[in-house]
Amino acid sequence: MDKQAITALIDAQPANTSLDQAFYADADIYQRDVEEVYLKSWLYAGHLSEIPGVGDWFLFELAGESLIVVRSDDDDVSAVLNVCRHRGSRICLDKTGCSKRLVCRYHGWSYELDGQLHSAAHMPADFDKSAIKLKKIHTEVLEGMIYVNFSEKPASFEPIREGLSRCLRPYRLDKAKVAHRQSYSINANWKLSVENYTECYHCAPSHPEYTRGHSLAKPGARSTVMMDEVMARAGTCGLSEESVNCVYLDEPGFGSGYAFERYPMWRGHLTGSEDGQAVAPLLGDVKNYDGGTTDFQVGPVSFALAYCDYVVIYRFTPLALGRSECDITWLVNGGAEEGKDYDKTRLTWLWDVTTLADKRIIEYNAEGVKSRYYEPGPYSNMEEFTWKFMSWYLQAIRP
Amino acid sequence: MDKQAITALIDAQPANTSLDQAFYADADIYQRDVEEVYLKSWLYAGHLSEIPGVGDWFLFELAGESLIVVRSDDDDVSAVLNVCRHRGSRICLDKTGCSKRLVCRYHGWSYELDGQLHSAAHMPADFDKSAIKLKKIHTEVLEGMIYVNFSEKPASFEPIREGLSRCLRPYRLDKAKVAHRQSYSINANWKLSVENYTECYHCAPSHPEYTRGHSLAKPGARSTVMMDEVMARAGTCGLSEESVNCVYLDEPGFGSGYAFERYPMWRGHLTGSEDGQAVAPLLGDVKNYDGGTTDFQVGPVSFALAYCDYVVIYRFTPLALGRSECDITWLVNGGAEEGKDYDKTRLTWLWDVTTLADKRIIEYNAEGVKSRYYEPGPYSNMEEFTWKFMSWYLQAIRP
Amino acid sequence: MDKQAITALIDAQPANTSLDQAFYADADIYQRDVEEVYLKSWLYAGHLSEIPGVGDWFLFELAGESLIVVRSDDDDVSAVLNVCRHRGSRICLDKTGCSKRLVCRYHGWSYELDGQLHSAAHMPADFDKSAIKLKKIHTEVLEGMIYVNFSEKPASFEPIREGLSRCLRPYRLDKAKVAHRQSYSINANWKLSVENYTECYHCAPSHPEYTRGHSLAKPGARSTVMMDEVMARAGTCGLSEESVNCVYLDEPGFGSGYAFERYPMWRGHLTGSEDGQAVAPLLGDVKNYDGGTTDFQVGPVSFALAYCDYVVIYRFTPLALGRSECDITWLVNGGAEEGKDYDKTRLTWLWDVTTLADKRIIEYNAEGVKSRYYEPGPYSNMEEFTWKFMSWYLQAIRP
Repeated sequence: MDKQAITALIDAQPANTSLDQAFYADADIYQRDVEEVYLKSWLYAGHLSEIPGVGDWFLFELAGESLIVVRSDDDDVSAVLNVCRHRGSRICLDKTGCSKRLVCRYHGWSYELDGQLHSAAHMPADFDKSAIKLKKIHTEVLEGMIYVNFSEKPASFEPIREGLSRCLRPYRLDKAKVAHRQSYSINANWKLSVENYTECYHCAPSHPEYTRGHSLAKPGARSTVMMDEVMARAGTCGLSEESVNCVYLDEPGFGSGYAFERYPMWRGHLTGSEDGQAVAPLLGDVKNYDGGTTDFQVGPVSFALAYCDYVVIYRFTPLALGRSECDITWLVNGGAEEGKDYDKTRLTWLWDVTTLADKRIIEYNAEGVKSRYYEPGPYSNMEEFTWKFMSWYLQAIRP
Repeated sequence: MDKQAITALIDAQPANTSLDQAFYADADIYQRDVEEVYLKSWLYAGHLSEIPGVGDWFLFELAGESLIVVRSDDDDVSAVLNVCRHRGSRICLDKTGCSKRLVCRYHGWSYELDGQLHSAAHMPADFDKSAIKLKKIHTEVLEGMIYVNFSEKPASFEPIREGLSRCLRPYRLDKAKVAHRQSYSINANWKLSVENYTECYHCAPSHPEYTRGHSLAKPGARSTVMMDEVMARAGTCGLSEESVNCVYLDEPGFGSGYAFERYPMWRGHLTGSEDGQAVAPLLGDVKNYDGGTTDFQVGPVSFALAYCDYVVIYRFTPLALGRSECDITWLVNGGAEEGKDYDKTRLTWLWDVTTLADKRIIEYNAEGVKSRYYEPGPYSNMEEFTWKFMSWYLQAIRP
Repeated sequence: MDKQAITALIDAQPANTSLDQAFYADADIYQRDVEEVYLKSWLYAGHLSEIPGVGDWFLFELAGESLIVVRSDDDDVSAVLNVCRHRGSRICLDKTGCSKRLVCRYHGWSYELDGQLHSAAHMPADFDKSAIKLKKIHTEVLEGMIYVNFSEKPASFEPIREGLSRCLRPYRLDKAKVAHRQSYSINANWKLSVENYTECYHCAPSHPEYTRGHSLAKPGARSTVMMDEVMARAGTCGLSEESVNCVYLDEPGFGSGYAFERYPMWRGHLTGSEDGQAVAPLLGDVKNYDGGTTDFQVGPVSFALAYCDYVVIYRFTPLALGRSECDITWLVNGGAEEGKDYDKTRLTWLWDVTTLADKRIIEYNAEGVKSRYYEPGPYSNMEEFTWKFMSWYLQAIRP
């Protein structure tokens, strides 16, 4: 589909309606999705606790690209493209590792942790090794969480930092640690995954495990007496009473939206768990359970839920036109000890069972939208936020 | 390949010759195959005995489409597209089931059995649920066999009914039951599968199991003394003496051809089985074995073989450019009891072993026609009927 | 990518630099690769000892094509396309076999061993079977090694024969036998596989098993005192003292390059093996180990290493745009007996372990060159020969 046709299709898209089939099936639109959305937005990469020592690294892979995210100095994180400047081989082959230098095993070219070429044998006399660097990608750290942006000139991260630092501070995520991280592969275009995450219209019919603890499965959960009660308790429990929502068309710069919003749990539910009881020690400076939970967001496709005892971070990325990845990180108090202070199975139960259900749901959605007879349908009142995402998306890829 | 090139290729196709490679390999031609052949023809979907009670349904999937074929009333069958009108999810996820209403599990939208939207929660005030229906597909029932047609205005089914009802009546297929149903996936364009089915030139070299009982493996089987003897016995055995053949270019309306033709079994063979002996009780009003068997056909790609004790129905559908499905249904007398009156292994032996051989043969054919050096070759005298199919096909997809 | 764009891309390609991404990813360039390089070059097919008796055959498959290479007479080898002239089925289905005639199992058409149609049943009266032949491909035999060329008018094989017969003669490969043959499937464009084979820059970092015995892993191995010593011993050991190198842009006709060049093993290494000790009896007329080994080449993608006790023949072929095959044949003295005179595991150890490592390396290279940010990089001094291949390749596919 050429640019003119894409523009016409976007302009013809009615509001509050699911997307035309082409947005899930057309290779040219997918190309734009990657280049105009993913390669220009702030994306969650991982957490500092995953690379505690200098030389520790992990890979972040999306849409055919592979990034090495490395602790390049005691207080510096670098992200460099995992593609050797000689003949293009992958350099780091494992998912995580630790190296003094980044060495391509093919022909032995070695790079400093910041991407500068260190040595290459048997090169011609006129070879200038100082001119050779691995492509560097912008990184930012917010409360221990590492974000990256492939753009040469990304939108400033400062509004995100200003907007979220104070709200997030009580959780002390800079002192948290990764208790578990898991990737779920979903056979569906990435937008079907994000659509699914951005609405709770499907929670009641599809997620009984979530619905029995979280009031968001009902409309208007944030305008209830329960919500007032949570906010009244928040301060004494050490939690923020703020609410910020600067995402999508309200974002300060492209791909740099952010939000922090709380909502009530049903009575008797302290956290997101099988029985509603705590599954880990309280996070950071949190003093007690206030009966609420927190949604927060950085950039267009990185979401999180902060309970008083743990945080789950979601990131959705495209792997191919019809395949996406949902990457989930579970953070707990950095001082907590597995087996003693928390049980990993109990900790991860809710969002594992919920994500596995979502994977099935999204894949059945993907099958249906392939039909020649598929027609976009009307969004419900509970899909307003999904339409916020979609209207931003349509503008983002408009040629 | 654009429409002009397709037209030129069709016009250049010599008679009685296998097709040019593009017909098996070109994505645009495949698109036309689906739209101009499959979505406009009468196709076998299943048998009433598979959905005996109101709310019983089964899925019929082809070329990326999924149909819910449902007993919508005591004496009514509906076929509706398995795509929710909200955001396009599949509604029925299993192959068969029974439901009071068709409920999409994603967001809980529910539909009546005829496709009318029954309920959708939290919709905007101006939402008119009466205007929302699942896409309905035309259905017809002939002697208990359900046929569907995706076209908005399909060719009338009446000529088929008039042409075949009397011939088929002795078998009383409306009172038959499905003893077994099986799908065979074939890694080949659907036309290679239909070409294979429509000629018995390959029977002698490829199907010893079939050939030892069925005289059609020899040319001219319908103009023999044996044929005369079968027809002389047919009436007293309660079987039709008629023969009809209105298929392909002789069809009364597009995709609505039909045929009923008999041919002799070799002496000592009562039916299609490993030893030639009966494998099930006589069907319907059939009184005895007359030494013949029956080919019948409805539409371009649904074929059947009616023996005196059982019927096998074949349906060929495309799954993708290079992948097709052969779906086989074995029907027996509705009063017959498995394990007592028939043994499923004996019943299905011949057409399972023959179809598995055909799958291999067709897949080797598919590999060969991919060669850059493949040249269409001449049909034999025993492939006349295949050419009938092919010449109809070429006209059907001609832009 | 159309022809004009391909030409422009080729013309913009800097010297001594890895290729632009399109050469590994573009379907139109791949099409040219197959048609302009593979289907016009001399390719190693197999060895006479694999088809000792009349009617013995093996298949050679590449880029969707399948060839039957058959001993059609006591002293004749034919290669015919494995595609029936009737409806295009594969004829030979196994990898190897022996048949009096080549019979297509689908409809029973049978062909003489040279491809002439022998019989086809039930054909129309005007059918002229003498006009029907399987497509024949040119073959040549050099010292027992069979080469094929798909071109209607291939470059003469005579320069190869003249250039290599005398050098190769001491090995008496016409009297050798295949001890083992193995295919390695590599998920990478074929050029990444050939690039890998044509340079030893990667040997030191990637192949410790090879490097400890073979001096070629160091630059300038052929201009050393060790080289002089080998050449001084060669004559008395019965080995050639010649060196020829007429490949790529120096080839006498398209796809008919040839080379024969020797280089020293490290002291203590008689052959390519785990411990440097002999793994099979001396080949042919070779009298003793002279401390060297031999690279020889026929055509652009068929390479060999001749030790004094065995020969490995490498052939690289495309299977699809992003998939290639490395086929390796191990030849030993025809009189040697497995289990007594040689142990197959010891014989094949070095080149199996090295090829498995190369498969991994090449596949990681393939992943990296897919990056949107991949940039071609500079070749080292040890990749001169790879550039010879590349500059020939670029000219070969130039529209």
